[in-house]
Order: sequence, then C-alpha cells, then structure tokens
Amino acid sequence: MPCISSVTAPSYAVIPFTLTSSKSSPNFPPTKIFTKQNPKPLLQSKSHRRVLVKATVIEKETPEAERPDTFLRGGDGDGDGGVSSVRVRFEKMIREAQDSVCNAIEAADGGGKFREDVWSRPGGGGGISRVLQDGDVWEKAGVNVSVVYGQMPPDAYRAAKGASSTDQKPGPIPFFAAGISSVLHPKNPFAPTLHFNYRYFETDAPKDAPGAPRQWWFGGGTDLTPAYIFEEDVKHFHSIQKQTCDKFDPTFYPRFKKWCDDYFYIKHRDERRGLGGIFFDDLNDYDQEMLLSFATECANSVIPAYIPIIEKRKDLPFTEHQKAWQQLRRGRYVEFNLVYDRGTTFGLKTGGRIESILVSLPLTSRWEYDHKPEVGSEEWKLLDACINPKEWI
Amino acid sequence: MPCISSVTAPSYAVIPFTLTSSKSSPNFPPTKIFTKQNPKPLLQSKSHRRVLVKATVIEKETPEAERPDTFLRGGDGDGDGGVSSVRVRFEKMIREAQDSVCNAIEAADGGGKFREDVWSRPGGGGGISRVLQDGDVWEKAGVNVSVVYGQMPPDAYRAAKGASSTDQKPGPIPFFAAGISSVLHPKNPFAPTLHFNYRYFETDAPKDAPGAPRQWWFGGGTDLTPAYIFEEDVKHFHSIQKQTCDKFDPTFYPRFKKWCDDYFYIKHRDERRGLGGIFFDDLNDYDQEMLLSFATECANSVIPAYIPIIEKRKDLPFTEHQKAWQQLRRGRYVEFNLVYDRGTTFGLKTGGRIESILVSLPLTSRWEYDHKPEVGSEEWKLLDACINPKEWI
Repeated sequence: MPCISSVTAPSYAVIPFTLTSSKSSPNFPPTKIFTKQNPKPLLQSKSHRRVLVKATVIEKETPEAERPDTFLRGGDGDGDGGVSSVRVRFEKMIREAQDSVCNAIEAADGGGKFREDVWSRPGGGGGISRVLQDGDVWEKAGVNVSVVYGQMPPDAYRAAKGASSTDQKPGPIPFFAAGISSVLHPKNPFAPTLHFNYRYFETDAPKDAPGAPRQWWFGGGTDLTPAYIFEEDVKHFHSIQKQTCDKFDPTFYPRFKKWCDDYFYIKHRDERRGLGGIFFDDLNDYDQEMLLSFATECANSVIPAYIPIIEKRKDLPFTEHQKAWQQLRRGRYVEFNLVYDRGTTFGLKTGGRIESILVSLPLTSRWEYDHKPEVGSEEWKLLDACINPKEWI
Repeated sequence: MPCISSVTAPSYAVIPFTLTSSKSSPNFPPTKIFTKQNPKPLLQSKSHRRVLVKATVIEKETPEAERPDTFLRGGDGDGDGGVSSVRVRFEKMIREAQDSVCNAIEAADGGGKFREDVWSRPGGGGGISRVLQDGDVWEKAGVNVSVVYGQMPPDAYRAAKGASSTDQKPGPIPFFAAGISSVLHPKNPFAPTLHFNYRYFETDAPKDAPGAPRQWWFGGGTDLTPAYIFEEDVKHFHSIQKQTCDKFDPTFYPRFKKWCDDYFYIKHRDERRGLGGIFFDDLNDYDQEMLLSFATECANSVIPAYIPIIEKRKDLPFTEHQKAWQQLRRGRYVEFNLVYDRGTTFGLKTGGRIESILVSLPLTSRWEYDHKPEVGSEEWKLLDACINPKEWI
C-alpha cells in the first residue's frame, strides 16, 4: 500500500527528517494508509508524497561528540508482558548490523577506515553516519542508522480508521521510524555496488484516543548493481536472498524479487539500475515478531551475500575501457537516486541531512553522449539484463 | 508568469516533446497562462508542471539522414504584410547561432569535432543535436536546436481568454515552440562551464475561433559556472550580458540577473550552481519584433562573452586537487539539472529525446562526503559566491 512509511523510511541512507503537523495540508491523507499492502506502491504513492512534502518541515540536526546508548526517548523501552518493545529491539538490531557490516567492510578493504558522524534532533531521535571514502577496495561506502520521532497529520490516521468526516478531529499522530541504510561502491569495475536498507515505522495512539491501536510497518531490501555480469556472483547473491526469504514465507522471494525489479527502474531509460535482489515496503499483514525476525535475518545476510563476491573480484585486472563502463553505470545510479528514489527526492525537498542522503552517490561517475555498447559485448549483456530482468535462480 | 512555455521550452538542450490533448486532465489549466510575467516563476509553476506532465505524451523521434532546410510545416512562412513570420526568422536565427557557436568551439578546441544527429517527429518539427566529446579543450560540448509542434489542452487557452465555464468548449490549441540550447563543459578546472538557451513559443488560434489572437512568448538566458573565480572573467561575462540587455531596456540586466540567481538555485544545498548571468521566461509584454531582436542579440553575444575567457584559461597548469574540486562542482551541476531544472525533469518524465536532454550532464563528476573547503581558500571563495550571489559589475 502507498503509505507514509514509504517516505519516512527511505531506501537511501537514513531517515533524516521529522514530520510536523504545523504545516499539514487539508489534502493530506494518504487515504489507504493502513490498508493492506499493494505490491506496487511506487506509482500509487506519488500523490501522497507530493502532499507529504508540503506537510513536512525538518528539524535541523545537531552534531554529537559521542554515540548515545540509545536514540530512543525514555519510556519507549517497555513492550507488553515485560518483553522489550519492538522499537528497542529494532534499534538494537540496526546498530549491531551497522557495526558488523562496517567491520566486515574494513576487513575486506584492508586500508580504508570509516569516519563516524553522530547527530541528534531536538525533538528526539538521531543517527550515526559512517563513511569510508577512497579505501583500497571501495571508493565510497556509507552505512547509516537513524531514529526519527515525528508527527503525522491527523487526517492520515482518520482515513485509516475509517472515521466519518463529521467526527471530532483528533490531534496529530506521533510516529516513530528507525532504519539502517547503506550503499557500497567498490573501485574495481568487476566488483559490484551493493545497497541495503531496513526500516521500521510505528504510530502512537492519538492523544485523544489513548486506547486506539498502534499501527506499524516494515520495509527494506538488498540489491546488487554490477557493471559486469559474473553469473555465479548474481546467482550466489540471489540465492542468499531466497534462502533468507524462504525461512519465513515461500512467497516472499518471488514477490520481493519482482518488487525490487519494479522499484529500481529508471523510467526515462526503460532500464533498471542493476540486477535486483529483494525489496518490500509497508509490510504489516504478518505477525509483527515474525517480520522483526525477517528484517533481522535480511540485515544479517548482507555480509554472506556480498563479501564473498568482493573477495573474488576486488583484485581482478581491468582496462580503462572497463573502468569507463563502470563509471557510466555509476551515472545511471545517480540518475535513479536523484530522479526516482523516494527517500532521496523526499529528503532533498524537505531538508534532511544532505550529506547522509547523498552519501549514496558514487565518488565518481560519467555521462557519455548516446553511448551504445556493441551488441553481444559484456557491456551489452549487462545492459540487456537491466532492460529485461532475469530469473537468476 | 508560470506558463506552458516554461516547460515546453526547457533550458537544457532542445524542446524534445509534443503536448497532446488526448490525455489532458480536467485539472489542466495553468490558469495564469497568458497573464503578465512573474519574475519568480520557479516556485509558482510547480503545480502546473505536475498537471502538464500528466497531460503530455511525447511522440517518438525519427533519425534523419540529412538536415532539412527547415523544420517548419508548409504555410508557416508568411507573416503579416509580406514579412517572414517570427517562426521563420526565429528558426533561421537559432540555426545560424548553432552554426556559429559550433564553429567557434571547434576553432578554440583545436582537436575535437562535433558529431551531428538530425531527427524529426511524425507530427511535425524536429531537431539537430551536435555534441563534441573528449576534445582538447572541452570534455563535453552540446549545442542543440529543435522545433516542436504540439497541442495545448483547451482549458489553458480558455483560462487565458477569461471565458466563462458555460462557453462552448473550444478544441485543443495548436502550439509551436523552437529553441537553441547548449552546455559547454571544459576540461581545465580554470575554464568555466557555459550554458545558454533561447526559445520562442506561439499558439495558433483555436480552430473554432479563427479570428482569436495568437499568443507568444520568449524565454532564455546565458549563465557561467566556473570552479574557480577569476574576477576579470566574471566581470567580462556579466558586462557583455549587460551591454546586450542595455541595448533594449535598462531594466533588463538587473531584472534578468536576479532571475538567473533565483532560477539556478540548488535548494537542498542553499547554493547556486554557478555565478549566474541572465535568465528570463514567458516574456511577452514588449514589442514582439523588439524581443526577437533581443533574443537574437543574446544568442550572438555568447561567443564574445565566453570564448575570450576560454582562450585565457584553457592551458593554465592545474593540480589534482584543483581538478577534483572542478569535479565536485560538476556534481552540483548534475544535482541541479536532475533535481530542479524544469526542462530536464519535464523531459525525463514525459519521454523526450533522452540523449539530447542529458547532454547537459558533464562527462565526469564527483561526490565526496561532507566536503568543506578551507575557509579563505580559492574553493571557499567560489562556494561563498554561489551561496551569496554578488553584483559583478
């Protein structure tokens, strides 16, 4: 379904903004906000995003000298029956995933070290951005986590509840969003770029209806963007995604694989930015604990899905021609992220932390006029697979 | 004023699309379409663009083996009183300007040659795209002309005429648009990028009201984007713009200089992409012949405004650090063009000739995480002038 989590928990890097109700528009409601998910929310959520952008102002972030133990507000810790809340466990999960991915990247890189920026917002929440730039293996690797507290315009919640327009207006609905997001751009043209992002979104009950149920969603995905196809690499990558999905539901992999192909689509070129993986959004029609485990498992599968490919490809010799092709594909990555990616475009328009948003862009990229790879060449094969998505396993 | 010419005659490269009425939306009308111009159309035209995009489908272009003498349809040649129509004279002007600018670029480059692509559309019109890539002086230089025939949704014309909603509905309004557009990216970091674009827009009378007046507008501008400031270069460039403007109206330069600073604004960074020049749009509240002469004079001033700067800077020695800074500024150019430029974003969404649209992007660009030039450095001075636009003359 098209819903607020599509924009509050973007696929780029962090969740760098806070919705405020102060500028909410009377047109606001993403009317299907709590309905059953739609497997293709991309097209349908555009108008919601447009209105959300209008309704949103971002608090300026403040740099922090040290990582806090938690970005959660006091009182957010306790769930039902003495178990830690999903907020607590999700934040813990993404911070552990950030640590383990950064450690694995540094170990594989051998030279580069992550720089860390910690920041908070006055209204609560904050984030940790980590970037390794110009390493031995990666030209740019960003791994960010963030926690956001905000206010959802009330009509969104009303629409979800199905309240009639004559009901008394509730106040704005507080929401919570947390996520990890990462883009890893290697130097070697045979070593693929990886993106992953996992996020959790939750509303509080409205203040004037304390008994009303909380709403929540999960979203995320992991996708691979090589400049050249090594079929064994792509099969390995997709196999890990499928194994992870299959532990939870046999429909997940085929559904989320297609969703990924549909989402990372550069419409003006009629091609995908890469060879896909999995992508899902607004997922709430399963058991919440199951989905928390699924998101955790997905985040934990990043290292086994990606690092073995890097180890095999990072030192392969390459030509200037092959490097230039990688740079051209980096240009496509920039086009997708700046023109289509929901999180990026939303973040730029509403004033998120620009450096965290744009860490997804490669260090270097290239645009040649009317470049057409020779039919049958390795470059052509990659382009063909971006135009006609394949079943890799 | 925010009006259709803002989008049908983009500032990037060509006018690569045809409006059709078949998918026109009932919400369509850019309601102020024929009103007096607004000096800041950028913010106000967004909703119009959104609707226009919905209402627009682009005919696929067809490559042509040869340049035709004209892209105009038969019968477009005659104006009032035996004088050639403005359409005829504008097309002649932009094609001559394309020739002279390309000749000057090739002469200054010394090595690179322009490649030419000619194309047409089944419904009339077409274009000539010329690109010089990886020359001795320029890494990428595109100079494009195009002529577009299209159909404007009828409500736009009705709104302009002030017709009441009970009037009989007129048919779609045919329109004509022609323009030249160019982006020139040199290799040497001390040699600035130049963009210019001049365009003319005209509607026919509706078929059911043959006596109704035609509407027309001019738009365009020339702006300079250096990576380093040589004050004498910037003064020279702005002086030529002012001289050209002053021949026609003493208010033009100050007004169009500010319009340029306002338009080429990268909102998410709170900085301009460069050091400005002149920019105007939807200009129709002057004598039509005067504005044709003005646009012609502007196009003819590109060579004297730009080439002397290139001659002085193209062979200066530079460091890797200076090249990297130029590449970072190229990244900003990409950000502006893909996120904000009206013509680019409209063209991408509606299916214009992608290679002509994106020829404005540099051959190479760069994004570093959280790059901050040292205060007082030459890089800082450029950034400061992009954040705080200056009066150069």
